[in-house]
Amino acid sequence: MGNFDKLLAKVKECDRKKVAVAVAEDSEVLQAVRAAKEQDIADAILVGDEAKIKEIAASLDIDVTQFEIINEPDMIEASLKAVKLVHDGEADMYMKGGIDTKNFLKSVLNKEVGLRTGNALSHVCLFDIKGIDHLLFLADVAFMTYPTLEEKVQIIENTIPVVKACGIECPKVAPLAAVEVVNPKMPATVEAAELTKMCEEGKIKDCIVDGPLSLDLAIDPEAAKHKGALDRKIQGDADILLFPDIHAGNLVYKALVHTAEVKNGCILTGTKAPVILTSRSDTFETKVNSIALAAVVAETMNK
Amino acid sequence: MGNFDKLLAKVKECDRKKVAVAVAEDSEVLQAVRAAKEQDIADAILVGDEAKIKEIAASLDIDVTQFEIINEPDMIEASLKAVKLVHDGEADMYMKGGIDTKNFLKSVLNKEVGLRTGNALSHVCLFDIKGIDHLLFLADVAFMTYPTLEEKVQIIENTIPVVKACGIECPKVAPLAAVEVVNPKMPATVEAAELTKMCEEGKIKDCIVDGPLSLDLAIDPEAAKHKGALDRKIQGDADILLFPDIHAGNLVYKALVHTAEVKNGCILTGTKAPVILTSRSDTFETKVNSIALAAVVAETMNK
Repeated sequence: MGNFDKLLAKVKECDRKKVAVAVAEDSEVLQAVRAAKEQDIADAILVGDEAKIKEIAASLDIDVTQFEIINEPDMIEASLKAVKLVHDGEADMYMKGGIDTKNFLKSVLNKEVGLRTGNALSHVCLFDIKGIDHLLFLADVAFMTYPTLEEKVQIIENTIPVVKACGIECPKVAPLAAVEVVNPKMPATVEAAELTKMCEEGKIKDCIVDGPLSLDLAIDPEAAKHKGALDRKIQGDADILLFPDIHAGNLVYKALVHTAEVKNGCILTGTKAPVILTSRSDTFETKVNSIALAAVVAETMNK
Repeated sequence: MGNFDKLLAKVKECDRKKVAVAVAEDSEVLQAVRAAKEQDIADAILVGDEAKIKEIAASLDIDVTQFEIINEPDMIEASLKAVKLVHDGEADMYMKGGIDTKNFLKSVLNKEVGLRTGNALSHVCLFDIKGIDHLLFLADVAFMTYPTLEEKVQIIENTIPVVKACGIECPKVAPLAAVEVVNPKMPATVEAAELTKMCEEGKIKDCIVDGPLSLDLAIDPEAAKHKGALDRKIQGDADILLFPDIHAGNLVYKALVHTAEVKNGCILTGTKAPVILTSRSDTFETKVNSIALAAVVAETMNK
């Protein structure tokens, strides 16, 4: 469980980062950016309705003078101004405030001032779980719904830089399924094997892919021993857990959050800079952790 | 976490049950039936190669004279003889020993001596999870791969008697998905809504169905409050978690087993008597718990 703390320590070795918040008049987001500031994780530029921002900040005893504020009461305009700050390099990462997800994503993908790279976007969630000795990166538990084989390649390619930014040079990628053998009646297993082959052939680089894998073989070295999986490239030591679809990913994500002892943080990737899209149901700690993860990733993107 | 213990206490109020083991020459199964005997959960009839059974038992210090043994060295024959004991009412539940799953299931489905009811078989796994105040029944995490709407109805109908046997009169069924609203682009959410409607129309009886539900709304009352889901029939108090497919179910199952503090036991249902099909990777405790669950369910099936 100390792995997330190590990551937080790493943030402090980075150059100080700045997060641009789209529509900052949101109490939960303001609390998260205050904590990020106080914990030396990142500074913030608040874009939105200045009067409302100040009113909410006052009600939460947040000293708003510590942040730069750009007054733009119109939500769409505020998101475009905020994302442009990141696009222009004046901020390092982009965060959703009190704007709906659809319009927030529109700003991310805006052709002129947005952060598109040509890649599809995907979501990655970093977990530090009690009983597992290394960090786990789950993709995609929130964004891509039913990724095709091609999109799974993209998810892997989007996720690798995030894992590398956290200090893991050649991540082990486990395309998960209910079983660890190919079953032609289970497309997820067939695609998992295809991804493995593509990696062996050098079509997916900078990682080791081994699938299909059941979750126990991916995360539990004892299970790998017990099942005699000693010829596998992954034996309970996967870094990236690639889910067959959003239902499997999201249900596992929520099972972990609600039943295990975890620390976690999530960002959107496939963009020019890390995007923080926390959800209503994320805890305060998760929101701060997401800013920290984004800061670590931004550090390597800037180089 | 005391709920599984309550279930074990319940077993002792039942008439003493007997489990027929197919191909009992298996060290893990022999240890499980010894523990079941010692803990007053159930007696066993061991069908298989008597010489091998005695040899393994001796090596494990198991007093084999406490069990009835039926000598049948041929595996297929042994499974048919064992399942016939259950079919004829001489035993109450049927357990897989050292026989492969395929042939074991053939014996379950045998037209003359097996346990078929006309229903499709499905798997149910009972969990007692630290932090969740009631028992959860997960279906199907191991058997049906991609259930159709009709098969999902069958899974619900197979699972209800198991939940009732554990003392819950009108179970709440949560057809799970990544989101709690219907999205036409996500078939799992559409089917979840259809199941809900079928229950409202009386086509699925003896339960309350409310879907689609995300996992947090299904198991966490606080999340339900936080998300303002106060108009839902299920608000963190689901009994049955119905998974969209085997990948989602199995990955959540393994996430719980490997990261949360849990007690669990599983059986196959849709049969005339409970069938215990534990897997290699199940712990010893899970195997014993599965016998206990089967005994509780057998008690109500006998009535």
